[in-house]
Amino acid sequence: MGFDAHRFSAVDSGRPLCVACLEWPGVGLEGDSDGDVAAHALIDAVLSAAMLGDIGGFAGLGPDSPGAGASGRELLMRCADEVGSHGLMIESASVVVIGNRPRIGERRILAEKVMSRCLGCAVSLTATTTDAMGFTGRGEGVAAMATAVVKAIASTDDARG
Amino acid sequence: MGFDAHRFSAVDSGRPLCVACLEWPGVGLEGDSDGDVAAHALIDAVLSAAMLGDIGGFAGLGPDSPGAGASGRELLMRCADEVGSHGLMIESASVVVIGNRPRIGERRILAEKVMSRCLGCAVSLTATTTDAMGFTGRGEGVAAMATAVVKAIASTDDARG
Amino acid sequence: MGFDAHRFSAVDSGRPLCVACLEWPGVGLEGDSDGDVAAHALIDAVLSAAMLGDIGGFAGLGPDSPGAGASGRELLMRCADEVGSHGLMIESASVVVIGNRPRIGERRILAEKVMSRCLGCAVSLTATTTDAMGFTGRGEGVAAMATAVVKAIASTDDARG
Repeated sequence: MGFDAHRFSAVDSGRPLCVACLEWPGVGLEGDSDGDVAAHALIDAVLSAAMLGDIGGFAGLGPDSPGAGASGRELLMRCADEVGSHGLMIESASVVVIGNRPRIGERRILAEKVMSRCLGCAVSLTATTTDAMGFTGRGEGVAAMATAVVKAIASTDDARG
Repeated sequence: MGFDAHRFSAVDSGRPLCVACLEWPGVGLEGDSDGDVAAHALIDAVLSAAMLGDIGGFAGLGPDSPGAGASGRELLMRCADEVGSHGLMIESASVVVIGNRPRIGERRILAEKVMSRCLGCAVSLTATTTDAMGFTGRGEGVAAMATAVVKAIASTDDARG
Repeated sequence: MGFDAHRFSAVDSGRPLCVACLEWPGVGLEGDSDGDVAAHALIDAVLSAAMLGDIGGFAGLGPDSPGAGASGRELLMRCADEVGSHGLMIESASVVVIGNRPRIGERRILAEKVMSRCLGCAVSLTATTTDAMGFTGRGEGVAAMATAVVKAIASTDDARG
């Protein structure tokens, strides 16, 4: 299970809005790397399913850290590599984006394809608002929560059994 | 994984409070269909586990959409049919209701039975408050989050193996 | 799936901050038992995966209930016993702590070890903030959400199959 939330920039810094590995119209999100809450929640879900810590330790996020400039796509791919190097594979993952923007709508399938390619497994995306309630409903920011299932890469023997 | 949140009606419109496929005392929730956050979060969880999109596309929710008058029970049953028609079955599902009302308490088992019958699998329900914090704690509305597991319907050969 | 949220004590009552089965510096959380949101969310996740109700029914929480003084560790161990007595075992569990405090950081692995020992399975812990948004971001309290997978304890025959 993973969760993340980022605040919209107070002023339009020209920073794009990156969510679910796509760019969207309007003001972007603050945060280390590109602020992609969906990718970050997925990474925490995958790392925790694999008992490999969390995104802080993995990407070394922080204002002047190595992960500071990384995109959601890059981080998802590095996450899949990390999991694979421990003899595990990601079976599936799912993420919910909660906020007024972006309106995922018709680009949902595209976002799923990009994230699925990055993680090497089926990744589903749903999106919802909070009916004008709370920080997501007031348009202060966006939250995302995710789940993932990982399993050991089957050896030839296991696959036969 | 699925999430939903709906706001309590500002005035008592006579609309019943529908949560987890039961009616409860007090002011109802706004929203398309009957505002049943638990059913809606479950549907998003099931559809995303099955890689079949989300409730927006499925039920065509929206003020003047075909799903506008549908109850949580109807939508859950349609969701189970949809999943079945893609050769999948729902293995289990779980939903948490977050809010001051309704007090699930003694009707938890009844709600689980109704939702389990609608989805054709074991559905568990838990409920919690947020200690008077946030929009759920201030009694502005109710949120729900859900998870689900689906699997391919085993062919005769698979079942034998 | 399980969720819980507790409010920080308004005055420093000397009550320790107990989260994820460890004590942390600073003002504690209100709530029955020790206010350990991570343990409580995990218990709801495990009980709901096992279709055994929720923490309210299980621990009898409430100001003058039998569970009122119980620590997160005690409750997790009792939860694992309860699940075992129904012929089930917990396969894995995962919890996210959302809040400004405690800073899980370097004690994450220790907390995972303690919770894993209590539940008898791998328990992963991640932690995040909400970028100063919402009740967790304003430092009013801490939330936690958890998932768990349980399965039937294999009989000798099943294990052979």
